[in-house]
Amino acid sequence: MTKKLNQIYEGKAKKVYATDDPNLYIVSYKDDATAFNGEKKGQIVGKGVVNNTMTNIIFQKLEVAGVPTHFVEQIDDRDSVVKAVKILPLEVIIRNVAAGSFSKRYGVEEGTPLAISTLEYSYKRDDLGDPLINSDHALALELATEEQLAKVSEYAHKVNEVLKAYFLDKGLKLIDFKIEFGVDKDGNVILADEISPDTCRLWDVITNEKMDKDRFRRDLGNVEETYQEVFNRIKKGE
Amino acid sequence: MTKKLNQIYEGKAKKVYATDDPNLYIVSYKDDATAFNGEKKGQIVGKGVVNNTMTNIIFQKLEVAGVPTHFVEQIDDRDSVVKAVKILPLEVIIRNVAAGSFSKRYGVEEGTPLAISTLEYSYKRDDLGDPLINSDHALALELATEEQLAKVSEYAHKVNEVLKAYFLDKGLKLIDFKIEFGVDKDGNVILADEISPDTCRLWDVITNEKMDKDRFRRDLGNVEETYQEVFNRIKKGE
Repeated sequence: MTKKLNQIYEGKAKKVYATDDPNLYIVSYKDDATAFNGEKKGQIVGKGVVNNTMTNIIFQKLEVAGVPTHFVEQIDDRDSVVKAVKILPLEVIIRNVAAGSFSKRYGVEEGTPLAISTLEYSYKRDDLGDPLINSDHALALELATEEQLAKVSEYAHKVNEVLKAYFLDKGLKLIDFKIEFGVDKDGNVILADEISPDTCRLWDVITNEKMDKDRFRRDLGNVEETYQEVFNRIKKGE
Repeated sequence: MTKKLNQIYEGKAKKVYATDDPNLYIVSYKDDATAFNGEKKGQIVGKGVVNNTMTNIIFQKLEVAGVPTHFVEQIDDRDSVVKAVKILPLEVIIRNVAAGSFSKRYGVEEGTPLAISTLEYSYKRDDLGDPLINSDHALALELATEEQLAKVSEYAHKVNEVLKAYFLDKGLKLIDFKIEFGVDKDGNVILADEISPDTCRLWDVITNEKMDKDRFRRDLGNVEETYQEVFNRIKKGE
């Protein structure tokens, strides 16, 4: 069994540990929640368990659909073994419906369907507030190569297609989501990080109720209950 | 001769008039200067004359190089006849060297050469502060078609190649510039607006002195003199 050694990174929602195999990490999901570039902080009890298990279920579905991921195996409720990767310093966002920063930045009412599935990148730099960046900017700043960006875009759109259908089957509309990619030891671009109510906007198909981290960001109440409800739907007929 | 009729638009630096020909406008260049989305206001005496004449000289060079423009003829120091177009609501920016908002947004020192000539779009919306937008956003918001964006990108890079060489010959480094495109009566994308020290960052090749509107934005002094100096270099061996 893979052994947890020293912690090599602590993010806002996860810790990453080295293992006795240099090609494997252990990711440990926390209940900590932050928003607005860390300005708002809190806890969502049980979130770590939901996000760990939900990510693993989804990553396995994506592997089957042809998207390579860092997933290796789940150890327990909060911990999973993943492939060691170097994370590309880009947040990769796909938007199907206007919401959040898109709505604010471009003056488009939340809930407006977009004419195309819209890919956008943010530069992962907390000190700069993770600014919006286009693909030319990413190349100019040498954050990724043209080949890596082509793979990122191809996989991101594939993830969107798979997840839209998957969530719809669970009574959830996929409004937008954020994913991250890493480069493995062989130089392959693979999906890393997580897919959870922390990183997706999910609206109930019938009521349009927000079933994601916006409940925490915007103080909408029933935060824990909502994470559990999404988790229940995911586990049902998994 | 084309006659100036009613004013149909007043921008920050120019007025646009209808003419007796529905396919032609007259553009009239003002000395008014603004910066930081209109927060800073002033006058640069003689600017209208410099920008009108300089734009016309450059647009004719670009036509020869294969970039279609709205230029028809210069009437006098401040006024020119141009083709009537519907302006695409995009500021098209090409950056060769980090400066201005790019440096601020991405934490890159001004003067740092970029790995590639970097194209970026802003959404022309004063009320939103002309936010950065990528090509997917432009399509999602239906600001332009995919075919129009392809033409815009092709022409913008061509303009950059022509202008880099042209300005270098005048002892000026082209750091970055902003252009705008319009759609003419036949549906063709053509270069419109202006190319001047208002819309280009130009640094003296020897001294690296700023020879553009940053002198006004940043209160560097010698604003009028700098516009005249650029104009003199442009006219010399035109």
